[in-house]
Amino acid sequence: MHVHVDFCLIPLGGDVSVAAEVAECERVLAVAGLQPRMHAFGTNVEGEWDPVLAAIKECHRRVHEMGRARISSTLRIGTRTDRHQSLADKVERVERLLAGA
Amino acid sequence: MHVHVDFCLIPLGGDVSVAAEVAECERVLAVAGLQPRMHAFGTNVEGEWDPVLAAIKECHRRVHEMGRARISSTLRIGTRTDRHQSLADKVERVERLLAGA
Amino acid sequence: MHVHVDFCLIPLGGDVSVAAEVAECERVLAVAGLQPRMHAFGTNVEGEWDPVLAAIKECHRRVHEMGRARISSTLRIGTRTDRHQSLADKVERVERLLAGA
Amino acid sequence: MHVHVDFCLIPLGGDVSVAAEVAECERVLAVAGLQPRMHAFGTNVEGEWDPVLAAIKECHRRVHEMGRARISSTLRIGTRTDRHQSLADKVERVERLLAGA
Repeated sequence: MHVHVDFCLIPLGGDVSVAAEVAECERVLAVAGLQPRMHAFGTNVEGEWDPVLAAIKECHRRVHEMGRARISSTLRIGTRTDRHQSLADKVERVERLLAGA
Repeated sequence: MHVHVDFCLIPLGGDVSVAAEVAECERVLAVAGLQPRMHAFGTNVEGEWDPVLAAIKECHRRVHEMGRARISSTLRIGTRTDRHQSLADKVERVERLLAGA
Repeated sequence: MHVHVDFCLIPLGGDVSVAAEVAECERVLAVAGLQPRMHAFGTNVEGEWDPVLAAIKECHRRVHEMGRARISSTLRIGTRTDRHQSLADKVERVERLLAGA
Repeated sequence: MHVHVDFCLIPLGGDVSVAAEVAECERVLAVAGLQPRMHAFGTNVEGEWDPVLAAIKECHRRVHEMGRARISSTLRIGTRTDRHQSLADKVERVERLLAGA
């Protein structure tokens, strides 16, 4: 099952800055071969369900190892069976509509 | 890794009513032994990361089998390493604060 | 415009426990007449768009006043124009399907 | 109160494609002066709480006018009182950490 995921991890407690933890998650997702596309409130990844969700679990594990005792993440997960669509396809389709308007 | 998850699955396209699909997800989560606690905008489950996320994958698979070609889910995932806390503990702690106010 | 909202507020930094802030949000939403229905990963409210979103803004304001410098919230917002449905209606409809299965 | 918002609107029912509705929301947010930064699973906006949330309400209103009877949106909302940080600052800070690693 191919998934599109938008993932935002938030460590609770301690330092109010979370940039180091977000950077570590980007590294974990990149090492997993998922080519994360970061935005200002999360990151987009796509791939097969199991490796994508395993990489997200690894993000939680690493951020706990960095000393953060509590984490709250939010995920948007998209799946479809009618056709294959990449993350880039989704954006391009909307951009074509906007350009044609 | 113990997780708390709040899960909301939304089928896209077709019938505007999604109650049958939500009910099927409750069944899938219950069969997986996760004792889902449904609310009006999702359901709470807790357990080990792998079986919880496997059950959520199974919800996507079943809802596609029901004829829905596209699904968008949102998950809140909480993990902590400082102590064990159940879903019920979280609610009770806030309710005690509210009762004492 | 009538809305169903599921709201989860997370203070960042400082104490890893967030129960006091969650309790304060429940109070703010109750004082606003929204009869919040708390679950273990957020709270359900319903009403007209403007007062519901104003109450959520007030939750942010109060939690900042409690000394939390940074907040990250997640909202699920549902609107529909085909018919009126309460939060309780949504849950009952799924429960009837589950009872009949 | 300055907010960072990540907004993802999903129409339910009818056509499985939602690109026209997503494009309309981008237009609404742009007309409101919010310079939306679209990604593959939502869009980032920032500004004062009231105009940002008013623009999101307008997105719901317009998508209903396009014939979609039911909408489910998800928002991540970030506020902070310790310092001003733009959406671009957040991304740059993580990118500097990644470049230095």
